[in-house]
Amino acid sequence: TIMAEQGSTPSPSDAPPAPSGPPPKVTTLGRAAAPMASSNSDFTEVPEFEVFGLTVPLSSVCPEYLDILDVDMMKKPEEINKMQHHTSYYHSDFLIVRRGQEFQVNITFNRPYDSDRDKIAVEFVIGSSPSYSKGTYIPVFPTKERQSSWEGRIIDQSGNSVTMGITPSANCVVGKYHMFVAVATPFGIRRTRRDKSRDLYILFNPWSPDDAVFLNDETEREECVMTEMGIIYHGSYDDVSERNWNYGQFNYGVLDACLYIMDRANMPIVNRGDPIKVTRKASAMLNSRDDDGVLVGNWSGDYTFGVAPTSWTGSTDILLGYASSKMPVCYAQCWVYAAVFNTWSRIWPKFSLRCLGIPARVVTNYFSAHDNDGNLKTDIILDENGKIDRNRTRDSIWNYHCWNECYMSRPDLPAGFGGWQVVDATPQETSDGMYRCGPASVQAIKHGQICYPFDAAFVFAEVNSDVVFYSRRKDGTMDPVRVNHSHVGRMVLTKTPLKMTRRDITDQYKFPEGSTEERTVLEKAEEYGCEREKSEPPVADVDLVLPTMEISLGDDFEFEVEFINRSNQQRTVDAYVIGSVVYYTGVTSSEFLFDTPTVEIKPNMSKKELVEVESKSYMRDLVEQANLNFIVTGKVNETGQIVTAMKVVTLRNPKIMVEVSGPGKVNEEMMATVQFTNPFSFSLDGVYIRMEGPGVMLPKSKYYSMITGGSSLTWTEFFTPQRSGTTRVMVTLDCPALRQVSGQASITIQA
Amino acid sequence: TIMAEQGSTPSPSDAPPAPSGPPPKVTTLGRAAAPMASSNSDFTEVPEFEVFGLTVPLSSVCPEYLDILDVDMMKKPEEINKMQHHTSYYHSDFLIVRRGQEFQVNITFNRPYDSDRDKIAVEFVIGSSPSYSKGTYIPVFPTKERQSSWEGRIIDQSGNSVTMGITPSANCVVGKYHMFVAVATPFGIRRTRRDKSRDLYILFNPWSPDDAVFLNDETEREECVMTEMGIIYHGSYDDVSERNWNYGQFNYGVLDACLYIMDRANMPIVNRGDPIKVTRKASAMLNSRDDDGVLVGNWSGDYTFGVAPTSWTGSTDILLGYASSKMPVCYAQCWVYAAVFNTWSRIWPKFSLRCLGIPARVVTNYFSAHDNDGNLKTDIILDENGKIDRNRTRDSIWNYHCWNECYMSRPDLPAGFGGWQVVDATPQETSDGMYRCGPASVQAIKHGQICYPFDAAFVFAEVNSDVVFYSRRKDGTMDPVRVNHSHVGRMVLTKTPLKMTRRDITDQYKFPEGSTEERTVLEKAEEYGCEREKSEPPVADVDLVLPTMEISLGDDFEFEVEFINRSNQQRTVDAYVIGSVVYYTGVTSSEFLFDTPTVEIKPNMSKKELVEVESKSYMRDLVEQANLNFIVTGKVNETGQIVTAMKVVTLRNPKIMVEVSGPGKVNEEMMATVQFTNPFSFSLDGVYIRMEGPGVMLPKSKYYSMITGGSSLTWTEFFTPQRSGTTRVMVTLDCPALRQVSGQASITIQA
Repeated sequence: TIMAEQGSTPSPSDAPPAPSGPPPKVTTLGRAAAPMASSNSDFTEVPEFEVFGLTVPLSSVCPEYLDILDVDMMKKPEEINKMQHHTSYYHSDFLIVRRGQEFQVNITFNRPYDSDRDKIAVEFVIGSSPSYSKGTYIPVFPTKERQSSWEGRIIDQSGNSVTMGITPSANCVVGKYHMFVAVATPFGIRRTRRDKSRDLYILFNPWSPDDAVFLNDETEREECVMTEMGIIYHGSYDDVSERNWNYGQFNYGVLDACLYIMDRANMPIVNRGDPIKVTRKASAMLNSRDDDGVLVGNWSGDYTFGVAPTSWTGSTDILLGYASSKMPVCYAQCWVYAAVFNTWSRIWPKFSLRCLGIPARVVTNYFSAHDNDGNLKTDIILDENGKIDRNRTRDSIWNYHCWNECYMSRPDLPAGFGGWQVVDATPQETSDGMYRCGPASVQAIKHGQICYPFDAAFVFAEVNSDVVFYSRRKDGTMDPVRVNHSHVGRMVLTKTPLKMTRRDITDQYKFPEGSTEERTVLEKAEEYGCEREKSEPPVADVDLVLPTMEISLGDDFEFEVEFINRSNQQRTVDAYVIGSVVYYTGVTSSEFLFDTPTVEIKPNMSKKELVEVESKSYMRDLVEQANLNFIVTGKVNETGQIVTAMKVVTLRNPKIMVEVSGPGKVNEEMMATVQFTNPFSFSLDGVYIRMEGPGVMLPKSKYYSMITGGSSLTWTEFFTPQRSGTTRVMVTLDCPALRQVSGQASITIQA
Repeated sequence: TIMAEQGSTPSPSDAPPAPSGPPPKVTTLGRAAAPMASSNSDFTEVPEFEVFGLTVPLSSVCPEYLDILDVDMMKKPEEINKMQHHTSYYHSDFLIVRRGQEFQVNITFNRPYDSDRDKIAVEFVIGSSPSYSKGTYIPVFPTKERQSSWEGRIIDQSGNSVTMGITPSANCVVGKYHMFVAVATPFGIRRTRRDKSRDLYILFNPWSPDDAVFLNDETEREECVMTEMGIIYHGSYDDVSERNWNYGQFNYGVLDACLYIMDRANMPIVNRGDPIKVTRKASAMLNSRDDDGVLVGNWSGDYTFGVAPTSWTGSTDILLGYASSKMPVCYAQCWVYAAVFNTWSRIWPKFSLRCLGIPARVVTNYFSAHDNDGNLKTDIILDENGKIDRNRTRDSIWNYHCWNECYMSRPDLPAGFGGWQVVDATPQETSDGMYRCGPASVQAIKHGQICYPFDAAFVFAEVNSDVVFYSRRKDGTMDPVRVNHSHVGRMVLTKTPLKMTRRDITDQYKFPEGSTEERTVLEKAEEYGCEREKSEPPVADVDLVLPTMEISLGDDFEFEVEFINRSNQQRTVDAYVIGSVVYYTGVTSSEFLFDTPTVEIKPNMSKKELVEVESKSYMRDLVEQANLNFIVTGKVNETGQIVTAMKVVTLRNPKIMVEVSGPGKVNEEMMATVQFTNPFSFSLDGVYIRMEGPGVMLPKSKYYSMITGGSSLTWTEFFTPQRSGTTRVMVTLDCPALRQVSGQASITIQA
């Protein structure tokens, strides 16, 4: 360090003194008057909510004013709030109500309340730095003459007690509030001290026509509230399988875990009444990318350091694990993200019997185009002979993909785009460069109006992409030889409300293939920048038909390829039959079959070609979900045309058996027995079995270090049903060599 | 660990064996066929771009085919590419061209090229996993019959040499490409090996009508390309100040630093031709929030561990610092973010004399509402007497805020929203929950069509919010008493193209105050969810007028408040005159003045009230940019009406003097002399002086540990101009006690 000379001419140096110690944390000083309130558990910074203007007890200077002796939140199960708001199922120590609907509190003073003389208010506060104009501090008055965004009235008065009715506004902030009772005097405000037992949750309300999540359909609302038992579809469109899932929204601690997620996301409190912002934030927070969110995605097959995605039976373990460890939970794939989002959506806004939250459901899109970022082309590259070129085929089409739909109005968009909105919490590579997606209006997707936020173009591509087969010349140029317009977005399914059956909602996303409306929609999407393959290569006059098959894991079988000649001349096809083990993402793990038959077909005739598949050829390389992908391509000798066909065959896994003892009754112990036999000649190592049942059993698991070939196990578990109704006990078995084994037993519990 | 028993019945355990070692890194295995290419410096994974199908030299089996002896990129300054593309100013070892315009390469073979017989291609490759269908592998042929998205032709043929013209498509990926020349034979492809000297940059082209960034205005294009010298406006709308800034886009290394930013962001290569996606990504990457981007924001006044935002003279040091350290650079405020974005935008797409990139400019919005997230209200809370309540006034209005506009078409939106787009790299708290903003169409903002992406509602609020004064009752309720519709977004300025003057572009953002169109626009914005204050409290019949003043830092002065009585009766105002030291963000640092005059005004008369301000009252607490904010509020006794007025006074800092020696000439050494006298009685400690000049001097700095009160310093620096033209040498002085001191000297360099 060179010191400046004393006197008139300071001397410079090029190098300043190096600062010592770590750099200070950057604060909001100078940038903002107060830090943005973004935690629902913060309260410490609100000293002004104490008696002000006085340092002596108010009673000593103005004894004639009211004193507050007791406040009763009326939150016991037999009291009116729990009864009217149907929150009896919910395990919570607090009052839980929904916005836009009246609830009651009972206040006891030191003398009878006099409405002409006494000025009282019930005050609600959420987050730090509460502010009247931001809607985070709300005083509610018992008289109409004093305005507030929330309504208040005296319902009953008896002796020194007053029963006050309070109706939160239908667009208020959603979360956990603190409550105070205040008495205004000329000298200051007498106010109750903070008492945690008076905290209350206020939530979205699809029942209220003024709420942005209003859903005017009783059956849909029931599904979104009552139903802990979920069904999520997978497999392939012509061979649909089901997963059971326990959303677990009534379980103790799940509500607080869902609130914690929004705090962890630093979501500003003032935005927490807007379902658009809340669901968009949740789509980002449920995956761990960017923000240390709830679930770590893993599609690799190596789940040594966590739970295999196929092994989870419900959301409870995941949400409680995240809230207690404050660390992302390992591991998830798309249906896990969608299922936990569904729980969050049911919990976050509601948990009453019929008075709901943001209505949400899990949907499954079969043959879902991915990572296309609004490009409507998925490319498959063939060589000049019609054989697939694996090195150059980078795109994959997921056999299925699960996302959520949430129901809400869209005041930020022109009229007509409210209703169901796509929200996707699975981290995709390129949704606007961020790991989140939606809410995107399903109506906007159906009509090609993909210029509206959020991510509508991305979802549009997932259901509308074309599969383009290119033939690649030796010099590197490529010609499109076949365009398949109907493969992607083949079918969209969700669970039928209040039933255990599936519901095809494809028509909510797309107009019928080949219709005038469909063409118009695609043209509209192109106006908004979607890229499509314009060429229409001639359709070959030879068709390929591949079979739909039910094959058990470990079986040998024959794969039958039918060649249909629609011309009046002989046709000869040099075909390539390729069988691959694929992940459900469509990514190829390994090729187990390669056959090159030459097939001659007489005019207007068909011919079947049988290909033998031995179990030993695929068993060695099988990955989870046991999908075999058959691709048949070929070149018609006489015309040079290219023919293609694809088929995914999901092998049937062994089942795990569950039996439940006799007719069930609430609060009477029952027994569930799990049985599994290793059907293979080899041992299964490191086996987890998980079991749970909505309303009857919390998640339980067992670990078996080895199950030798042919051996059986039995696991018996006792449990006590909490509620009446029909439910299921669901079991999964998982080990590195065998994933996605499941079983369930239906039971009806009497009251 | 409990082992399973051998035999028929495995035994379970509740606890599995704990895995040892760190969890494996999650890969894309099973999720994608290949990792998404997102680095422009990656190339290693492309083995297929070698001779294929042959393991012996091609010349030994087919000597009659062409051999490639040499490829000349024609990148020397005197050759046709540099001349036609005007890239002579640019310090780069590589060919730099723009898309949609032809450039030339010269290829020498072992014998004359025969167009009928020889099949050649020039191939361009960018990123890993290059793909024809994704536009990251492009073969270009010399003949029309072979199709490619890029055009090729033989321009000249002489002996064994061929000059080939190549025109990249106008929507190709922007970045650094590798080039190969290939000869097709029946046995395989003979191809040049990778040679780094043949790498070339291809960039956006506002000159080409087919390019999304086409800007059909020569003057605007010149400003966006040639001009390294920038002017950024600050101060207040009625007292505008200027900052000089050297965008420095021609300086060595700046281009590569700008490319590095996109790589650091992991931006998919395939998206790098889309200016919408590219600018949106840049708005996120220029701030360090979320993503370890370029600049750390700091408004606190403590810049010990970095450079004070007011001390920077240009972008060069910032960009080179980020690229070399790979760490965010400390520190920035809004104009630093905007200025570096401007450099990035000029660099990234262009750097030729007249052939440009994404046109971009820095604009300044005076009185910019912030952190409102689309809410059109900024609240100021007064108590019942009309005195401002600091504890409850959380919102701030920035004295000014700088952002960027980029020019581009918007194919993702309906027609009419192309043109200038707002992009803001300053991290704000709540732009869709992320630290980025835009591109948002200026046309959409002007017309209230804020439903379109990205962040149009947010920018709309920045220029259109109302300031609402609430009077707060003791019981906590608040009544709006005054709504100021014209304060926010008072003026929007940018530099006039090719001149050193300012240009008022307010009318591009807003219709005139009070016009029919303005009302229609606000109603439209409300339809899309913007919240406005609906009440219209009566306007008081007493007006307050505050003076516009020029005060030097350290002076005592008088602040004059004029009260105008527009009524026919006497009016008495109990006024509060509050003077605060504020940051430019409008956040209050400390109050230095509090006066409570009672003013009586005769009917239809005015009265002036003088308030004395002593320098010692404000000097102690002064923060950078030396802004004093005067707020006068009060209550009219006779009517109970509330009056309010606000004025920001920016104190004049001492200047630093710069003189440059005699008439300048390219390549002749010159001398710049900096002089500064500490005008205060106290010492200035830890003083940095920075100096640079576009085209004449790279950034230089000196450090003085102390400049005692009244002492002077002189710093002389020699420099050699590189280019002719008019430019400036710009100097800043910075120390904790005195910030934002600047000076400049204009010079004209002869060729």
